[in-house]
Amino acid sequence: MSNLPKNFRQKIHKGVFTSQTAGLCPGYAQGNLVVLPREYAFEFLLFAQRNPKACPLLEVVESGKFLTRTASGESVTTAIPKYRVYREGVLDQEMSSIDHLWQDDFVTFILGCSFTFESALVDENILMRHIEDNKNVAMYETTLPCRPAGIFKGTMVVSMRPIKYTEVMKVIKITSHYSAVHGAPVHIGNPEAIGIYDLKHPDFGEFVEVKDDEVPVFWACGVTPQAIAMKVKPSLMISHAPGHMLITDIANFTLKE
Amino acid sequence: MSNLPKNFRQKIHKGVFTSQTAGLCPGYAQGNLVVLPREYAFEFLLFAQRNPKACPLLEVVESGKFLTRTASGESVTTAIPKYRVYREGVLDQEMSSIDHLWQDDFVTFILGCSFTFESALVDENILMRHIEDNKNVAMYETTLPCRPAGIFKGTMVVSMRPIKYTEVMKVIKITSHYSAVHGAPVHIGNPEAIGIYDLKHPDFGEFVEVKDDEVPVFWACGVTPQAIAMKVKPSLMISHAPGHMLITDIANFTLKE
Repeated sequence: MSNLPKNFRQKIHKGVFTSQTAGLCPGYAQGNLVVLPREYAFEFLLFAQRNPKACPLLEVVESGKFLTRTASGESVTTAIPKYRVYREGVLDQEMSSIDHLWQDDFVTFILGCSFTFESALVDENILMRHIEDNKNVAMYETTLPCRPAGIFKGTMVVSMRPIKYTEVMKVIKITSHYSAVHGAPVHIGNPEAIGIYDLKHPDFGEFVEVKDDEVPVFWACGVTPQAIAMKVKPSLMISHAPGHMLITDIANFTLKE
Repeated sequence: MSNLPKNFRQKIHKGVFTSQTAGLCPGYAQGNLVVLPREYAFEFLLFAQRNPKACPLLEVVESGKFLTRTASGESVTTAIPKYRVYREGVLDQEMSSIDHLWQDDFVTFILGCSFTFESALVDENILMRHIEDNKNVAMYETTLPCRPAGIFKGTMVVSMRPIKYTEVMKVIKITSHYSAVHGAPVHIGNPEAIGIYDLKHPDFGEFVEVKDDEVPVFWACGVTPQAIAMKVKPSLMISHAPGHMLITDIANFTLKE
């Protein structure tokens, strides 16, 4: 029972659980969070629409509202273990509630997260090494361009998972059925080809070693909006801390195509 | 050659062709048009996102721009045979160019149109009776609710095609592969079940008789935003006149899933 999202969210709501969420509540989708003042909402929604691999939309909560459907009736202000507040593109604070910062003109975007398809991979006996090691997934900035929309422009952030050479095709096949949560990989192997020159030092999350019989496989990542916000510098943007996701009530199998 | 979209659009651009476009340039997608001042753009984009059957997005042209990608480099101000201008929800004028009305803060939405999948149906020897009769398709307001987004709320407009009883399943199967252009029907048979009480008098377009061996089949229609604008009353909204579409360069087969 404690593995049910709504029970787990109680711990998050109370501020008891403030860690990263990889591997938690298996079978349920997790989501990235982006909160922006309404003046940025059209251009960000258009950015998400144009970059569905990096920003697959699960839900938009309009200005004036703060309860989510994807995490039944939860307030977006306390539903996430750790938030990040960016002001003028600079990471200003991390906190476990944004109740005191909430403004009526905030629009909330919940984006699919690759933690979702990890359940499907684990079910097929594909080892997720960061979960085994109880680590956050490794995330990197790349040179892969996003399609711009208004002020939102920049490059993609990717998550990396070491996959056994013999299992790469199987992993592509499985994840390609989950386009609502980043879908198939965007790159396989040679990190330098997408502008990653130091695999051991990820830009977000924790490094996971790539063993001799493995290849690094890269997926578009919902941290992309944060990396872009740091360059575009909206007056205010609130997001989840990387790896600290919204655990939704959406069963993973319902996202399979 | 004259059947190529870019050649046909020349006639439209010059104001030589101002009629409805059903059956023209077979093999190429046609699009619905919605132009709104930027203040409405976020809520309309969200409305489209939440109602993909009625409002499948092919392209969004941001404020400050007026050239489309889907109809290579064409200005949205002269690319359509007949425009409708709604002011405060009232149809104010029809015209063949909106050059003189253009404002820098206009955002343009191009939505998929069911004329696209008609090509696929004709290819499979399914008779499209309105094309045979050189008529516009029949469109009706219904009681089917749309998911609201901000001020945009209301019911769906549908297009109707008489289909032979023996071919209904085939038609569903074919159109379900075209979700970018309204996809599978939303209703089959009994018009009253969706609030249509007088099939002979469509709200838009022209009536096409349903013969004894046929059943009326209904698809979500891109005229939905116009019907909703008439209720929601944005200060200004420009659309295509029903049936007078943007002929794009998108080959229909590329929209098949």
